[in-house]
Amino acid sequence: MTIITGLAVHDVRAPTSRTLAGSDAVHSDPDYSAAYVVLSTDGDLTGHGFTFTIGRGTEVVCAAVEALRHHVIGVRLDDVTADFAAFWRAVTNDSQLRWLGPDKGVIHLATAAIVNAVWDLWAKAEGKPVWKLVADLTPEEFVSCIDFRYLSDVLTRDDALAMLGALEPGKADREAEIRRDGYPAYITSAGWLGYPEEKVRRLCREAVDDGWNAFKMKVGIDRESDAWRAAVMREEIGPDRDLMADANQVWDVSEAISWTEGLAGYGLRWIEEPTSPDDVLGHAAIRRALAPTGIGVATGEHCANRVMFKQLLQAEAIDYCQVDACRLGGLNEVLAVLLLAARFGVPVCPHAGGLGLCEYVQHISVLDYIVVSGSLDGRMVEFADHCHEHFVHPAQVRGGRYVVPTAPGYSAEMKPESLGALAYPRGSEWAG
Amino acid sequence: MTIITGLAVHDVRAPTSRTLAGSDAVHSDPDYSAAYVVLSTDGDLTGHGFTFTIGRGTEVVCAAVEALRHHVIGVRLDDVTADFAAFWRAVTNDSQLRWLGPDKGVIHLATAAIVNAVWDLWAKAEGKPVWKLVADLTPEEFVSCIDFRYLSDVLTRDDALAMLGALEPGKADREAEIRRDGYPAYITSAGWLGYPEEKVRRLCREAVDDGWNAFKMKVGIDRESDAWRAAVMREEIGPDRDLMADANQVWDVSEAISWTEGLAGYGLRWIEEPTSPDDVLGHAAIRRALAPTGIGVATGEHCANRVMFKQLLQAEAIDYCQVDACRLGGLNEVLAVLLLAARFGVPVCPHAGGLGLCEYVQHISVLDYIVVSGSLDGRMVEFADHCHEHFVHPAQVRGGRYVVPTAPGYSAEMKPESLGALAYPRGSEWAG
Repeated sequence: MTIITGLAVHDVRAPTSRTLAGSDAVHSDPDYSAAYVVLSTDGDLTGHGFTFTIGRGTEVVCAAVEALRHHVIGVRLDDVTADFAAFWRAVTNDSQLRWLGPDKGVIHLATAAIVNAVWDLWAKAEGKPVWKLVADLTPEEFVSCIDFRYLSDVLTRDDALAMLGALEPGKADREAEIRRDGYPAYITSAGWLGYPEEKVRRLCREAVDDGWNAFKMKVGIDRESDAWRAAVMREEIGPDRDLMADANQVWDVSEAISWTEGLAGYGLRWIEEPTSPDDVLGHAAIRRALAPTGIGVATGEHCANRVMFKQLLQAEAIDYCQVDACRLGGLNEVLAVLLLAARFGVPVCPHAGGLGLCEYVQHISVLDYIVVSGSLDGRMVEFADHCHEHFVHPAQVRGGRYVVPTAPGYSAEMKPESLGALAYPRGSEWAG
Repeated sequence: MTIITGLAVHDVRAPTSRTLAGSDAVHSDPDYSAAYVVLSTDGDLTGHGFTFTIGRGTEVVCAAVEALRHHVIGVRLDDVTADFAAFWRAVTNDSQLRWLGPDKGVIHLATAAIVNAVWDLWAKAEGKPVWKLVADLTPEEFVSCIDFRYLSDVLTRDDALAMLGALEPGKADREAEIRRDGYPAYITSAGWLGYPEEKVRRLCREAVDDGWNAFKMKVGIDRESDAWRAAVMREEIGPDRDLMADANQVWDVSEAISWTEGLAGYGLRWIEEPTSPDDVLGHAAIRRALAPTGIGVATGEHCANRVMFKQLLQAEAIDYCQVDACRLGGLNEVLAVLLLAARFGVPVCPHAGGLGLCEYVQHISVLDYIVVSGSLDGRMVEFADHCHEHFVHPAQVRGGRYVVPTAPGYSAEMKPESLGALAYPRGSEWAG
């Protein structure tokens, strides 16, 4: 029996803005960062979780983690996992702290760090990677992790049980297949806005040589430069590989439509975050207008919670559902969104990159395939080649696919030396 | 020429949970609180603003205010007011801090405290209450305060200019009228969930005697108790006064419909926050289903930003638009929502109560009448009789109407002795 006895939170920042890695139309200088949580216990186990941030403000998320501390200290792991939805509801529905959200922004980011650390702890206690822990749950155990509040108009507990039950027969085969082949991925490391042509070409060529079949570029600052970058990347990757574009929320609705239509000649699979992440009806309007171009609409990395995803699906606003492992309130809410997306037949292509997101989301997509959607159609996990060196069990890709992780836990644990170097503001990367 | 030279933020909490004031279906023990900002300048002027919170977590909002400090220190007031939209965009679109929102949760609450303090400062510099400062702006000056980003599919700068221009002729008359008569209000002090019958009856009777014509009750814990409270209040206030009900987000969509239908016999004007504040499509479904009962749908106190309000209006999801003075990112965004609501013909009935919200929103409704909507139809400002004693210029009601404030500023300034007593955790209300 494990009892959670301590919580430590670390403000961790990598100085990535020095190289323009991650530059896009609205985030011009991200320092890939995390509010990083370590849960200690009365035994040897520790749980590690984090929320991804991009520099300034990480200290605010750390303060929110501290504000949630009383929900986790003294808790028995067995009690949490016996009714994980109740634990999640207690954290997200704190009668005073919920005023700061509810279920959005800083308090929800902090929730994710803690909740994901609990999942890491549970998986380590079971000696399994998180994806395998979830895949081995019965349908009843799976749904006991989900707070169905505000979802019952489109998805009830019984609906979810029926969906999960229907996929039980093929589980073992899908697990064997995905362990053997890995999970399809796409790469975002070549098309950052700040990169010059020669660098874009070189990165594309190297990625093609490494077996990548899908590429994403950033757009939204300048129409000519976007067309140029699309042409260069299409030329390098050839006509048959996937190319996607990401506008990072820069446009109003009508501008999103006209700008994207201008890129229709480059065979884009999707336009990502074409407008405000809160604008469900705007995304729906953009999707309708772009239908003749064959370009789909993708969003989700800034989608605040399951209620917003519910509406994106109800309104037929998206072709691709890009869940984020820590924008949502941790894995429990991610599982709810996987079910919603499967119910609406929309493929989940998780947001990744940054610091540690690739490590998280590989678990999400692998378990989605094995027990929730049962499909790889139109599905890819994002990959960016940054910051993996800081993790004890870094995500691995081979031939353009994620290698299924095998270490127990949620792959969230950072190396002690990285925690020291990236500690803000006193680590060696920042001091002086 | 005034330069902002300092920012101090105070964690201020009133121990209101000790009396059950403010208890509702999901906020069982609110301690009315504020992240309270004082801007100092190179002259004698100071600007005061705050964000309302309900206890725990106020320190997180204070941390977010500190994170935004660099956007306001060293700024010339004249530069801000010459292009207030640009200042607002700089604060809300900080290339790293926006990751914590954007435009929602803790970082947006913190934005409101700072932005409202700048408005207070500007109004004091002009020697006017905020409502009068705004009412005296030209249409061009008014729209220069608004960031139209993400709104242009329903409201452009030119649309706004035309709307404001069309109301110019009657401005002086409406100002004279509202100064003379005050602004209609409703009262929420009688129907809290925690109050026993005799207290509810006594508070209703006293309010009727004081001239109140509109009353709000809390619902959502227990159907029988809600029907009982509605019957008691309807009996006390008679058939002709307005009665509204507030569920504070407690229901799923179908439960909201059936529960509210069960209250149809009590002549409710609206059901407020029937479900998740993020569920635009859910509110629209509830509104359609309740149409035969004559009960309208109201929401807004947890509506995160102008994009969410835009959709509530586009989807015909609300009959009443309940803006909050500091849930939105300060008065600039409130002005945008007033324009949106007027464009869709939906009355604005601001959320108030708590600590200082009444003081803020009286300005909003008065200026809405004079320059934006030009109408009082279906419009009322919430009033609750708590915590006014802490303000230098407290909101005043007479005969069920707000008395138009006349002191320069945004009525946000708290008494020094209150700041001292309510300071958390070391003030006299909290120490020991």
